[in-house]
Amino acid sequence: MALPVVRTVSHLRDAVRRWRRKNRKIALVPTMGGLHEGHLSLVRLARKNADRVIVSIFVNPTQFGPDEDFENYPRDEHGDNRLLSKAGADLVYAPSILEMYPNDFATRVEVAELTQCLCGTSRPHFFAGVTTVVTKLFLQSLPDIAVFGEKDYQQLLVIRQLVKDLNFPIEIIGGPIVREADGLAMSSRNAYLSEADRATAPQLYKVLSDMAEDLGAGRDVESTLAMGANRLRGAGFRIDYLDVRTDDTLIPLEGQVVDSARIFAAVWLGETRLIDNVPIHLIDDPVV
Amino acid sequence: MALPVVRTVSHLRDAVRRWRRKNRKIALVPTMGGLHEGHLSLVRLARKNADRVIVSIFVNPTQFGPDEDFENYPRDEHGDNRLLSKAGADLVYAPSILEMYPNDFATRVEVAELTQCLCGTSRPHFFAGVTTVVTKLFLQSLPDIAVFGEKDYQQLLVIRQLVKDLNFPIEIIGGPIVREADGLAMSSRNAYLSEADRATAPQLYKVLSDMAEDLGAGRDVESTLAMGANRLRGAGFRIDYLDVRTDDTLIPLEGQVVDSARIFAAVWLGETRLIDNVPIHLIDDPVV
Repeated sequence: MALPVVRTVSHLRDAVRRWRRKNRKIALVPTMGGLHEGHLSLVRLARKNADRVIVSIFVNPTQFGPDEDFENYPRDEHGDNRLLSKAGADLVYAPSILEMYPNDFATRVEVAELTQCLCGTSRPHFFAGVTTVVTKLFLQSLPDIAVFGEKDYQQLLVIRQLVKDLNFPIEIIGGPIVREADGLAMSSRNAYLSEADRATAPQLYKVLSDMAEDLGAGRDVESTLAMGANRLRGAGFRIDYLDVRTDDTLIPLEGQVVDSARIFAAVWLGETRLIDNVPIHLIDDPVV
Repeated sequence: MALPVVRTVSHLRDAVRRWRRKNRKIALVPTMGGLHEGHLSLVRLARKNADRVIVSIFVNPTQFGPDEDFENYPRDEHGDNRLLSKAGADLVYAPSILEMYPNDFATRVEVAELTQCLCGTSRPHFFAGVTTVVTKLFLQSLPDIAVFGEKDYQQLLVIRQLVKDLNFPIEIIGGPIVREADGLAMSSRNAYLSEADRATAPQLYKVLSDMAEDLGAGRDVESTLAMGANRLRGAGFRIDYLDVRTDDTLIPLEGQVVDSARIFAAVWLGETRLIDNVPIHLIDDPVV
């Protein structure tokens, strides 16, 4: 059965108001559509933590640079709706660009820390676009919780900072990365990959996992990064960034890793940009 | 009887939650303290439009420039509390600077339009400071309505834009300027004026009113501004700005005024900066 779809703030608020009257706990899962199992796992996580789940589908133009893939970003509202219905969502919110950004729109929400590295360097418009649209989505729906994926780990940290700084009364829940059987992190952009590139792509996770194991065993950051970068280039990736950073403040690490940290990578395969990140489990830590 | 004062977001939310449970309509009146009859008129306006009135008192450091009067801004919490109690407020929210801006605070909310002229030119940090703190105050209290004074007319427009752009579910109400018997617009900063400057200050409103009358009668903007500026300088004011602009989009006008417009002025008397604004009633319009 198709899920109900609302396209205006006013209709969204009508639905939320009805649920509030019945004391339903409400979750929002913001997406840009192009849904895959990663998104659906976030919907299920939302379902576990709330009574009603709204999934927003909005390909947000302000988080794309002028040379990026806004026009070609995968859009399949019918397919998305079917998947969301099965995953247990209750409502799709799919506003038009004009509903989100009327012609006189002039406001910008920016988080200064956490956004000056990694994807913030490669995609200078990205995070301000994300924090502005997420602020709007939050204020449009005022959910109790909102769920974001750890695939966009830096984005998750930025959203947490935004929520803390602006005092949104919303709990942010992060959902773990979902991978294909061969290890490739699920992403709407995987659909862009040629057959040959799709065969190469899983090497990204393989290399990051080996690096994480080495770092966890005490190998120093510098030689591990050099080894990892060599292997990625050898496999055919162009590297946008490859970094070892603390997993809360994104401070770059040197020498032996002793803090709670992750490896962060963005790479290009042909015209497709892939990102991934992997936690480092120190050998003294219980491995999850 | 002294009004209850809360100093943390968490206590503020407890109070709001209790009122929400009883379906009370809640108003917020954001202030920086140093209260006078102008503020109190906003509290009464809030009272008229809601069941419960929260007045925030927070001298917001981020809207002051480095050479401005943050340190010396009038602070008198006891006196303010007495006045608010009489005016019909229900709760004072007076957070500390650290409650509002923890050490890792990193977020900024900015409205690009409307803020590039008038006070936005003279005080480049001002509006981003205002829109960021107001976003926080709104999200901390989530009122049904919020009341701002027309004395800070540009600020009122900027807040309306902010609320529209970010989809705050809050109605913004503007309260008219309250003046001393001699016409001086009430302002916490009037307390800075020397006796001599206080005697000069009412000339600002006198000149603006005469200009508004001339413009309403069809005199052109250019000669009216020249006449007004001359009179202000003659009276001893230094002019920061003196402008005739549309009263919704702040577009500067030329020639004869045919749109709905206001005169906007910021002037210095000694070390004290005063602002004021006056509507232009066209002779064809019914004069209020």
